[in-house]
Amino acid sequence: MRPAPDLRLYLVTDEPQCASAGRSVLQTVVAAVAGGVTCVQLRAKDSDGGPFLAQVVEVCRAVGDHVPVIVNDRVDVFLAARELGASVAGVHIGQSDLPAPLVRALIGDDAFLGLSASTDSEIIAAQTEGACDHLGIGAVHDTATKTDAPGGLGVAGVARAASLVGLPAVAIGGVKVPDMAPLAAAGLDGGAVVSAICCAPDPRRAAAELLAAWTEGLR
Amino acid sequence: MRPAPDLRLYLVTDEPQCASAGRSVLQTVVAAVAGGVTCVQLRAKDSDGGPFLAQVVEVCRAVGDHVPVIVNDRVDVFLAARELGASVAGVHIGQSDLPAPLVRALIGDDAFLGLSASTDSEIIAAQTEGACDHLGIGAVHDTATKTDAPGGLGVAGVARAASLVGLPAVAIGGVKVPDMAPLAAAGLDGGAVVSAICCAPDPRRAAAELLAAWTEGLR
Repeated sequence: MRPAPDLRLYLVTDEPQCASAGRSVLQTVVAAVAGGVTCVQLRAKDSDGGPFLAQVVEVCRAVGDHVPVIVNDRVDVFLAARELGASVAGVHIGQSDLPAPLVRALIGDDAFLGLSASTDSEIIAAQTEGACDHLGIGAVHDTATKTDAPGGLGVAGVARAASLVGLPAVAIGGVKVPDMAPLAAAGLDGGAVVSAICCAPDPRRAAAELLAAWTEGLR
Repeated sequence: MRPAPDLRLYLVTDEPQCASAGRSVLQTVVAAVAGGVTCVQLRAKDSDGGPFLAQVVEVCRAVGDHVPVIVNDRVDVFLAARELGASVAGVHIGQSDLPAPLVRALIGDDAFLGLSASTDSEIIAAQTEGACDHLGIGAVHDTATKTDAPGGLGVAGVARAASLVGLPAVAIGGVKVPDMAPLAAAGLDGGAVVSAICCAPDPRRAAAELLAAWTEGLR
């Protein structure tokens, strides 16, 4: 049985944001993990499979033995990375990606499967289906990263949604330092960030501040 | 060992083009196969995995027992369709998708693997690697469908490129009725079309005319 990943500070990468801050995704991830990121999801919606695979392999080589590295959407990239011996930990999918039970069948029982969910029915269906290990619930705030995401639920809204089921849940969508303590206090399992790290002048320091705020919220 | 697919009239789908002609991809494929299309590649670069899988499954259900249905790029969609019992025949990849040897490892030896190639070195590498079954070589003409493709090679250029290796090759890129006979006469194994069928007022009739022109070129 796979262990539950440490979801406290969950980095979701955005290549254009990293580039706008003058860094590669790899550089951003390495710095952020040094600062305290506990889980990394590589997302590259605009990349072809070849470059995305190369990114997954290089990030796994750098940090895959320290934190779980999770591939967004592309189950085939996950499988190809495994085929190459990379220490890739799992897949994260959204509601319009391949159905969770099929993804589970393809990745096997020793890989993590995360699922994005926003509505009560999506969250309850995720538990009923039984295929995924944890949820990404949001958006906490309105965000420009995912233009197809619904409006912000707020910390209280995300916490209420997460309480509907027993699955570990991480809050996502515009999460910044001031959100981390309230999310921890509200019983979430973690905060997922994109721009708070990818756009930060110093990703290592940004990660350290986010994790410290999380820990503060648990007191 | 997998049999060589009949590549003579190879339809590559484009959902926006089908929609602009007032039809779904499924409706277009069914009509085109009735008209003589010998092989269908489903391409949906802008679709998420869920809707693309649904399209692959419904097209396989309609025509998968009559002609090979091949999935563009998304090896995971191919694998999921197989998991659902769909009669999907293979995968087609481009130079920036997952590397051909990895795709072969993921799809197994009983599935077709096609590869797009434009330059002499890409074509020769495809044969050397030994992972793919056939090539799509082009563009024959400049085309608006693939904005990342190089300029037109012409019928003679494609034929020369195809003659570099022993792999079956289909010509692609702006192919219309007047190209089919010269391509057949030049020794290609087929002509791949997108807009010539997807945008046609009557895809069944368009397919019949294209196949007739191909046959004419073999005399």
